[in-house]
Amino acid sequence: MLYTARMTAPDAPAPHAQDLAPYVRQGRADLAALVALESVSAQGRMLPETADAVTALLEAEGFTVRRSPGQVAPILLAEAGEGDTTLLIYNHYDVQPETPAELWDSPPFTLTERDGRLYGRGVSDDKGELVSRLAAVRAVRAAHGGTLPLRVRWLIEGEEEVGSPSIAAFVEAHAADLQADGCWWEFGSISEEGRPVVSLGLKGIVCLELRCRVSDSDLHSSLGAVVDNPLYRLSRAIASMRDDAGRVTIPGFYDAVRAPGPVDLDALASLPDPRGPLAGSYGVRGFLGDADAREANRRTNFEPALNVNGLHGGYGDAGSKTVLPASGFAKIDFRLVPDQDPAEIVRLLRAHLDAQGLHDIEVVELESHEHAARSDVAHPFVQAALAAARDSSLQEPVVHPSAGGSGPMHPFVQHLGVACVAMGIGNVGGRVHAPNENIRVQDFERGVRFGVTFLERLARTSFRCP
Amino acid sequence: MLYTARMTAPDAPAPHAQDLAPYVRQGRADLAALVALESVSAQGRMLPETADAVTALLEAEGFTVRRSPGQVAPILLAEAGEGDTTLLIYNHYDVQPETPAELWDSPPFTLTERDGRLYGRGVSDDKGELVSRLAAVRAVRAAHGGTLPLRVRWLIEGEEEVGSPSIAAFVEAHAADLQADGCWWEFGSISEEGRPVVSLGLKGIVCLELRCRVSDSDLHSSLGAVVDNPLYRLSRAIASMRDDAGRVTIPGFYDAVRAPGPVDLDALASLPDPRGPLAGSYGVRGFLGDADAREANRRTNFEPALNVNGLHGGYGDAGSKTVLPASGFAKIDFRLVPDQDPAEIVRLLRAHLDAQGLHDIEVVELESHEHAARSDVAHPFVQAALAAARDSSLQEPVVHPSAGGSGPMHPFVQHLGVACVAMGIGNVGGRVHAPNENIRVQDFERGVRFGVTFLERLARTSFRCP
Repeated sequence: MLYTARMTAPDAPAPHAQDLAPYVRQGRADLAALVALESVSAQGRMLPETADAVTALLEAEGFTVRRSPGQVAPILLAEAGEGDTTLLIYNHYDVQPETPAELWDSPPFTLTERDGRLYGRGVSDDKGELVSRLAAVRAVRAAHGGTLPLRVRWLIEGEEEVGSPSIAAFVEAHAADLQADGCWWEFGSISEEGRPVVSLGLKGIVCLELRCRVSDSDLHSSLGAVVDNPLYRLSRAIASMRDDAGRVTIPGFYDAVRAPGPVDLDALASLPDPRGPLAGSYGVRGFLGDADAREANRRTNFEPALNVNGLHGGYGDAGSKTVLPASGFAKIDFRLVPDQDPAEIVRLLRAHLDAQGLHDIEVVELESHEHAARSDVAHPFVQAALAAARDSSLQEPVVHPSAGGSGPMHPFVQHLGVACVAMGIGNVGGRVHAPNENIRVQDFERGVRFGVTFLERLARTSFRCP
Repeated sequence: MLYTARMTAPDAPAPHAQDLAPYVRQGRADLAALVALESVSAQGRMLPETADAVTALLEAEGFTVRRSPGQVAPILLAEAGEGDTTLLIYNHYDVQPETPAELWDSPPFTLTERDGRLYGRGVSDDKGELVSRLAAVRAVRAAHGGTLPLRVRWLIEGEEEVGSPSIAAFVEAHAADLQADGCWWEFGSISEEGRPVVSLGLKGIVCLELRCRVSDSDLHSSLGAVVDNPLYRLSRAIASMRDDAGRVTIPGFYDAVRAPGPVDLDALASLPDPRGPLAGSYGVRGFLGDADAREANRRTNFEPALNVNGLHGGYGDAGSKTVLPASGFAKIDFRLVPDQDPAEIVRLLRAHLDAQGLHDIEVVELESHEHAARSDVAHPFVQAALAAARDSSLQEPVVHPSAGGSGPMHPFVQHLGVACVAMGIGNVGGRVHAPNENIRVQDFERGVRFGVTFLERLARTSFRCP
């Protein structure tokens, strides 16, 4: 692939010269309003209402917003501005469930500032990202007399946390309206030292539920001498699917994995050690296989993984109850890398369970699956994003070939052919998907400043062939 | 051991001649009152209140009741009557938790008649047994002009469902007050065909909780590439502890097991197939190792077993949540046979987990442990109980060398030296420890009739050496 880009205007004034405080303030007010909307897609809560609120925010900044039905929640496609460059932005307005709600130190759906951080479900993933970008758009419009000096196409869905079941078809159906010079992906983070942490790819994902039932109703546990136990069966299934080092033991699981190339592996050398911050922020006891820094980064960027999200069955209250439960279930996810195919993974799992004699373990597909995707660090759009990150932070960005997380990047990269850059305001202690999700107050400001710098740079760049 | 017994009076009138209807009616009223008391020992609910209610019922029938503190609930020791024979009765007034409460078809603490059955927590285990025996005492007293023609010592505790932590010490401390010619154990059942199902032994039990924690708080599941998963660790632990055929794979687990003798094994031949009723009443899908009838009975009577009572961690609501849980736990029980030692089993489990590299699995002892115990079918007290069962039911009793369940029989057999017979009013569809616990209306009547027949026979028998 041949990439080109040239600057069409001289550098704008240094981004630190502009006073962004009013835009940060308004962005925080927008964030409080969105966090208050309990847009839990897994439970179908308040999704149309949140789409309405996001639409109103976009329309107030001059965007034309088209709303399309998704399988779970409305999909918004907004457009504003004019110029040589077209930027596609992807965000989502849905959030993960707040459970276990009792572990939050402040109400999950109330934006709360404490000790230099803002807390609330979605404050990082992904409402904080969304409104910090909107604040940047607002600032750039103001600096340009009320018009955006580039075309921004903004795709905002409400089904990301349930696997974006509608987005691949939507991208195919609206390919012309989504054409762009690059895509600013929904997330990103900032290190403890203030370095932008950028990801150029995402893992794929398969979310499944394993179910086992041995009887219609619970039994006295003395019958465990003759009746099998659904929690043993589930445990056997899970224990059979990986080893103690974290390697998946389902036959064929690694067959399609595209091995990282020399450039990919070289990138690992410059990545900071993720283990210290995880131990510090989350009290993580240890790491799989006692990985060193390079190995931990290799696993995060390039290794598929199996994770158990939840496992439930039988008695769980105080003391003991000698019962043989009728049934149990486990929720699992596989994180995939290029070129693993989610449907094939489900097929391999079923074959594995059958080969293990675990015919009684039912496999239920919980949500639509996603392929992994990666973009090339040499792409000029990626380079423009990195330059903007460097300029706005005055630090060298950390560049991950792939994040450990997932999202519907594959149709953007494969179908639209755009490069995707994930750059945002998360932090390693941000407790995304967990109680006390948070962002640092300072990172929200940094996010707005990066956005302004990025948009200004893109407006002065042409990605067309000369 | 030398047993003797001789009848000291001619046979009383056939037990079916007496009209027991008034005693059955009053017994059902007593049962309704006791079921309404939520005496869940695992949760410390309403235990003194229930002890009060039981005391009042006993005192109304002429019993002197002494109340002693237990670790969890009061222990009652009641005595009434005079004669050559002393019968010890053991019951308990505590019950299992009612969870999952939503699966009950009527309120768990309201005695409810439906389709020929009485429903409610404890209606079978063990309040129904207790009040049916009290109804028999009442009828026998009435028939004998208001006095009991034998001495009855009745030990009723409120900690049975949490492993009877106080009973062994209580039995030792009150051995003189508990001396008897035999002990009528707290439970028993009646087959579909109306045959009394008698057990002469109980398994031992060890109740444990396995805990695993990998971090202070939940993590995004993408970190499953580098951080281990507590539910995988628990699954690995459980899967390592038994095989698919149900055999425990902890090294040394079977070392102390006393093999059944030829008489024990012969007894298996006369036991009915337990599988049909389990499939019919509970919809049991299949049986461990596709056991035949003899093997199913051998396992129930003579094999120790591992059972998982509950396993919980992470997300369990609708849809999916891609979280890496901070922790999880499993509640398990081991059912033991003579001469396995509960403390040694805990030690073997810890050694096994360590040998498996599962040092991070914490083992917590949930409640006091029990040794297995068995009595000899040839003992004259046992023979008297079987004769009474035969006379009152007009059918041949089914005799299990050991039940699959557990209880504190060991101190009675070992320390007091009494033979124990478990004979009562349960049924295979009784859902003991589960939602919709029930007894058949007819079995309650049968229980009262058996009690009258048994007490009358004991009153006419001398177990002393001539």
